[in-house]
Amino acid sequence: MTLDTSALIPGLEGVPIAESSISQVDGEAGRLYYRGYSIEELTQQATFEQVVGLLFDGDMPSATRTAELAKQLEADRALTPKQIQIARDIAVETHPMFALQAAVAALGPKVNNFDQTDFEAAQARGIALTAKVGHLVGVIAQAWAGRPYDGPRPGESHASMVLRMITGHDVSELHERAMNALLILQADHSAANVGTFTTRVVTSSRAEPESVISAAIGALSGPAHGGANEAAIRLFVDIKSPDNVENYLAGMVERKERIPGFGHRIYHVKDPRSAVIQRLAADVIVRAEEQNYYAIALEVEARLAERLGARGLWPNVDLFSGCVFHALDIPIDFFTPVFAASRTLGWAVQMREQLESGNRLFRPTQLWNGSQPRPLGK
Amino acid sequence: MTLDTSALIPGLEGVPIAESSISQVDGEAGRLYYRGYSIEELTQQATFEQVVGLLFDGDMPSATRTAELAKQLEADRALTPKQIQIARDIAVETHPMFALQAAVAALGPKVNNFDQTDFEAAQARGIALTAKVGHLVGVIAQAWAGRPYDGPRPGESHASMVLRMITGHDVSELHERAMNALLILQADHSAANVGTFTTRVVTSSRAEPESVISAAIGALSGPAHGGANEAAIRLFVDIKSPDNVENYLAGMVERKERIPGFGHRIYHVKDPRSAVIQRLAADVIVRAEEQNYYAIALEVEARLAERLGARGLWPNVDLFSGCVFHALDIPIDFFTPVFAASRTLGWAVQMREQLESGNRLFRPTQLWNGSQPRPLGK
Repeated sequence: MTLDTSALIPGLEGVPIAESSISQVDGEAGRLYYRGYSIEELTQQATFEQVVGLLFDGDMPSATRTAELAKQLEADRALTPKQIQIARDIAVETHPMFALQAAVAALGPKVNNFDQTDFEAAQARGIALTAKVGHLVGVIAQAWAGRPYDGPRPGESHASMVLRMITGHDVSELHERAMNALLILQADHSAANVGTFTTRVVTSSRAEPESVISAAIGALSGPAHGGANEAAIRLFVDIKSPDNVENYLAGMVERKERIPGFGHRIYHVKDPRSAVIQRLAADVIVRAEEQNYYAIALEVEARLAERLGARGLWPNVDLFSGCVFHALDIPIDFFTPVFAASRTLGWAVQMREQLESGNRLFRPTQLWNGSQPRPLGK
Repeated sequence: MTLDTSALIPGLEGVPIAESSISQVDGEAGRLYYRGYSIEELTQQATFEQVVGLLFDGDMPSATRTAELAKQLEADRALTPKQIQIARDIAVETHPMFALQAAVAALGPKVNNFDQTDFEAAQARGIALTAKVGHLVGVIAQAWAGRPYDGPRPGESHASMVLRMITGHDVSELHERAMNALLILQADHSAANVGTFTTRVVTSSRAEPESVISAAIGALSGPAHGGANEAAIRLFVDIKSPDNVENYLAGMVERKERIPGFGHRIYHVKDPRSAVIQRLAADVIVRAEEQNYYAIALEVEARLAERLGARGLWPNVDLFSGCVFHALDIPIDFFTPVFAASRTLGWAVQMREQLESGNRLFRPTQLWNGSQPRPLGK
């Protein structure tokens, strides 16, 4: 395909911004692969720690390497008392996503001298940030809920730490497995989604990794990127019962409102992450409240799949994921922060790949449609 | 020009990412215009407050409008005691640029429901952020230097407030005029520099303005974007005297080191902002220390202009601006934060334009060069 650069390409659709070997989205078949492995298999068989190894190293880690990574993540997740206090202070002032964006930038070093040719250092910083961002989401959740700080426990897996700190209660093995799957599921989605693209653009200015991940969290906070699962569950709360779906949706369609949980720029079939989420839903949804939300989600899908599918809008991961987050006792305001904790891994790996591929400064161009030069006079 | 999208376009060079009417860079003639007015005239004749009006409104504001804007900026720059305390706490933990990135994200609202079709609200939030970021740079500088908080004074201009809070002493009329010019000079530089591009990419996810500006500050913190003036002055400190320039540069050229203050992706002649800075230098450089740095800068230019010019590297704004910042008593670590305070205005205006032009989500594509699908096995 060729593009005419005398015209604007809205959203840069179709324009390649990276050569990448990390994750591959097959929008026609509805498949998502990390380093060639399908997301279905990974979420069933791997832990988050193993996927850290897979994404950074390019292949599934050995048992020795997995143990080493688990140890590294455990050591790296440590925050100083001051960093914890700052995150807690911000958490009561603003939305958890802005608190996270701020708290991550506040982890930056005192001297700005990141060596962008030291790929090992970039990887170490990336792994450390993956560990710390999960911890920070927990710190922010505790302060947000008015609970005291209760930090990571020795030997606790990343998934278990994040979920326990957010919910404030111990995590069953079933919920730990589900949280592992959620963290894996959202860890990466090509180099070109808006948060990851932000990662690469900011990396290209040779910013420090903390600045890069903080900026990406800013991009993820936008409802056009993260946050649609939040909108979906709020809709289900409003719909109240599966019996109301038909009437409720008729009103929305009539008012031409956007229905959350449908449509994706890349997938032209049902989002493969939905199938993973629905498998998790079967495992973790046991309470009447979530059974009801899930029944509403299924009814929304049944009523709309054909009609919206004809317009190219298929069910995406957000239609069902809110029900699963809710069943794990994650507050609605923390759906997107959990997404950020997961995606920080992908951003960190993409940052390293951006550095390794020459890291040319992003410096596109604009088309001028304003005033010609004119004198200011007096 | 046409582009082949089956190949990567490193740095998206030549790819238009916006139609814009805000600022225009003429790289061949070496000119920079805001809304058609040259940067030379604006830095000589306008205040920062007037340029806020010019950039947002599209034309020079009347005296009434300027007074209204000055009042609005003065009211908007207020920070809560909690916001000030958070910024001060972060300032002693990390580099001022990361502290600024964090403190701006911490200004975000408690509920994330920015209406991206409300352009008036976007403008109000943008003006407020312009005011608050200047104030925050001062807050961070005071904590960084171990001084108590000493906030904006009634009737104080934006330039005077920022400079007084950073330096810790009253500001002469001459220095206030110079600071006005510096804030105007760096306020915008097309839609496509990496910080402004970040602004547009993050805006496209419908993130809140505080998230957007915080992310852009992250991009500006990279030495490939902001920060080159810092590198230039540190070089001059190391060179010590104009007499050493020839020998010192010979060594750098031999070791193929990059010489700060030369080269720009867009300008193919001397950066027009250099001329403005040199005019300011003539006004504000009076002490022996800065006279020496400036003499070194001129000697570096004299020795290298021809040789580097042949390779397309011309003196840019960073070669001389550090000398002027230094003469105004701005600590080296605050050169880039001052740049951020200035550029926040441009980012805010570009954010509004991005929203007004449909704000299509940036969602480019990647070229896959990784593993084909493979089974995970056990």
